[in-house]
Amino acid sequence: MQALTESGAGTEARPVPRSPRRLHESWILDHLRRRGRASRAELVAATGLSRATVSALTGELLAQGKVVVTEPATATGPGRTPQALALNPAAGLVLGLDFGHSRVGVVAADAAHAIIGSATRPYPRSTPWETRCAIAVRLARTVLAGGAPRLAAVGIGIAGSISGRPAVVEAIRDAFTDAFGVPVRTDNNARLAGLAESVWGAARGVPDALYVRLSSGVGGTVILDGRVHRGRGGAAGEFGHVCIDPTGPLCRCSNRGCLECYVGVEAVLAEAGGTTLAELGAALDRGDRDAAAVVAKAGQRIGLVLAGAGNVLDVPHVVLGGDLTVLGEHLVRPVRQTLARHLHANPDATVGLAELGDLDGALGGVALVLHDPSIPFTGPLAPRHLTGTA
Amino acid sequence: MQALTESGAGTEARPVPRSPRRLHESWILDHLRRRGRASRAELVAATGLSRATVSALTGELLAQGKVVVTEPATATGPGRTPQALALNPAAGLVLGLDFGHSRVGVVAADAAHAIIGSATRPYPRSTPWETRCAIAVRLARTVLAGGAPRLAAVGIGIAGSISGRPAVVEAIRDAFTDAFGVPVRTDNNARLAGLAESVWGAARGVPDALYVRLSSGVGGTVILDGRVHRGRGGAAGEFGHVCIDPTGPLCRCSNRGCLECYVGVEAVLAEAGGTTLAELGAALDRGDRDAAAVVAKAGQRIGLVLAGAGNVLDVPHVVLGGDLTVLGEHLVRPVRQTLARHLHANPDATVGLAELGDLDGALGGVALVLHDPSIPFTGPLAPRHLTGTA
Repeated sequence: MQALTESGAGTEARPVPRSPRRLHESWILDHLRRRGRASRAELVAATGLSRATVSALTGELLAQGKVVVTEPATATGPGRTPQALALNPAAGLVLGLDFGHSRVGVVAADAAHAIIGSATRPYPRSTPWETRCAIAVRLARTVLAGGAPRLAAVGIGIAGSISGRPAVVEAIRDAFTDAFGVPVRTDNNARLAGLAESVWGAARGVPDALYVRLSSGVGGTVILDGRVHRGRGGAAGEFGHVCIDPTGPLCRCSNRGCLECYVGVEAVLAEAGGTTLAELGAALDRGDRDAAAVVAKAGQRIGLVLAGAGNVLDVPHVVLGGDLTVLGEHLVRPVRQTLARHLHANPDATVGLAELGDLDGALGGVALVLHDPSIPFTGPLAPRHLTGTA
Repeated sequence: MQALTESGAGTEARPVPRSPRRLHESWILDHLRRRGRASRAELVAATGLSRATVSALTGELLAQGKVVVTEPATATGPGRTPQALALNPAAGLVLGLDFGHSRVGVVAADAAHAIIGSATRPYPRSTPWETRCAIAVRLARTVLAGGAPRLAAVGIGIAGSISGRPAVVEAIRDAFTDAFGVPVRTDNNARLAGLAESVWGAARGVPDALYVRLSSGVGGTVILDGRVHRGRGGAAGEFGHVCIDPTGPLCRCSNRGCLECYVGVEAVLAEAGGTTLAELGAALDRGDRDAAAVVAKAGQRIGLVLAGAGNVLDVPHVVLGGDLTVLGEHLVRPVRQTLARHLHANPDATVGLAELGDLDGALGGVALVLHDPSIPFTGPLAPRHLTGTA
């Protein structure tokens, strides 16, 4: 008989608390790590603890310097604005990186989710990984400026499969471990973009959502209960390789008729007879019927795959991201219509555009490490974090 | 800003423990409720607690009579057989029922997962719900025999949508509450069949699995981390209404080209020109090529929908259940081949046949209430459970 691990949330281990106070404190800190800042009322709602317990515990956390008082995330209208709490920014900085096919993006943030700086740098598609890493490390140092000694961890997104390319992943990890001497985490960059949208963007405040990134490649993220669903082999979110016609065109994955073959940017441009997305967008805006038909068909195909996933998961919100979304409502409308028709489990599901732009994957790298319970962000940096910095 | 509930597992609330001992004890009891019986080593693996803690806590639970020593679930070869623990059967009996389109199934079990009795009774498809409930209550009393005073809860599966038929659900709940005076829980019966397979059948010991029930209707279950994923609106698992061709035949759900239109039992029989599944099975066994082509096509369509869900969720195991599975390997082979080709996220995913037979839905009703943390099963029945029994 196989022993089962019944612990709650996907790949994250359930911590064994030493006392109820420690356990409840960990729920508060976990929420602040995930959401950046929260009022005491939000902490009550999020943890299920009583108002008195939250008040007592946050008082202790403030006294210990683990938590600070900060501005609320959004204005709440006239009247007294409730205080927001956040992790102490002195707990350390986080670097998020996104290695795309032809550029790297970098974001530096503190433990309170405040963005310290960001930058992107292009490279030719043929650039070897060693060079890409060297470019990225230099760029990261610029973004960190004088903050490098306070760096606590690095989260890195990579285009394409993680599990299928262990050598690339190891080379990237080694480069950043050597450069900064802090923990390094990696994940697929489309998945990280979806994580970032769920923390800061179009899926903020929605516990369950599907995110699809439509660029040259098509990938995505499944958010369940506010967390990334990674799947047993870590490969969940492969929307691009859902087959829509087994007799369709050959895909780079060696199967036929995958969604990516039809709605990847190059496929859409080829069908529309255009050369750039800007050109296609202009054609749509001046009412070109052929262009509209091509984009409507792409939207229907995306909608059908999302409706399939939605029927299985019953998810109330879908976010579209990636280069193709510059087509805006021309693309969103047919997706929305197809979902309304075919999402039997939840016909009221909403569709929105991603909000975070080019730095979505790098922001997801920041969230990746902030959400990782194995990396501590409570209190000023321990001396071991200061060793090995450049 | 919307407050988020970050609590762990789907629709089940995270309990707020009063002490770490209580919390750890609840993990042990929760595992026994879910799995029926477990050795101390399995409890260590499942809870993440130390061997010493598990030993101390189970010692207390045994002394309190909440837990008993029992036979292990399976023989473990030569040598000393480790003791298994289970909830005290005196904590109460559970009734599981499954209202199909033309029959009701009933199972009675104790808190240690031992089956006390079972029965099924047919009724015409036109039978009104009032009559169905009266038939089921009589049948349940027969199955319980003298055990009715020990009844703790009733779990009921219903064919078709739960959320869309509140009046039917209320009538059923009322009938059983009036008859037995204990908590009553309801769910879709295809979902409960999948839950039962994950507890006792073909998905036992697999934390993540997809279950599809292929009968007149097509439904199913998504198991993630050993728990049923219900979705935000409670409608997850609608494999039957995943669209495979938007220009396809009209479905009873009012959309076109849903999987159910192609692989529901009646659709397969109509395409094969046969009148019964037994007849179709006989044709397959004597090598009828037309029959084989029809069943292969059905299997490919099922496989394609499962591959789509598998690419999004990265799930390692798939279970096929329902009436259509009497076709055995004739059906399973094309499903397996299609998954191997199109399940990009996990090409090694395995496919198996359901193991629990006609009582799967009723067994799922038993699991539904045993897994519900709001129904206590720890220690002899409280007096309130004894009121209102017939």
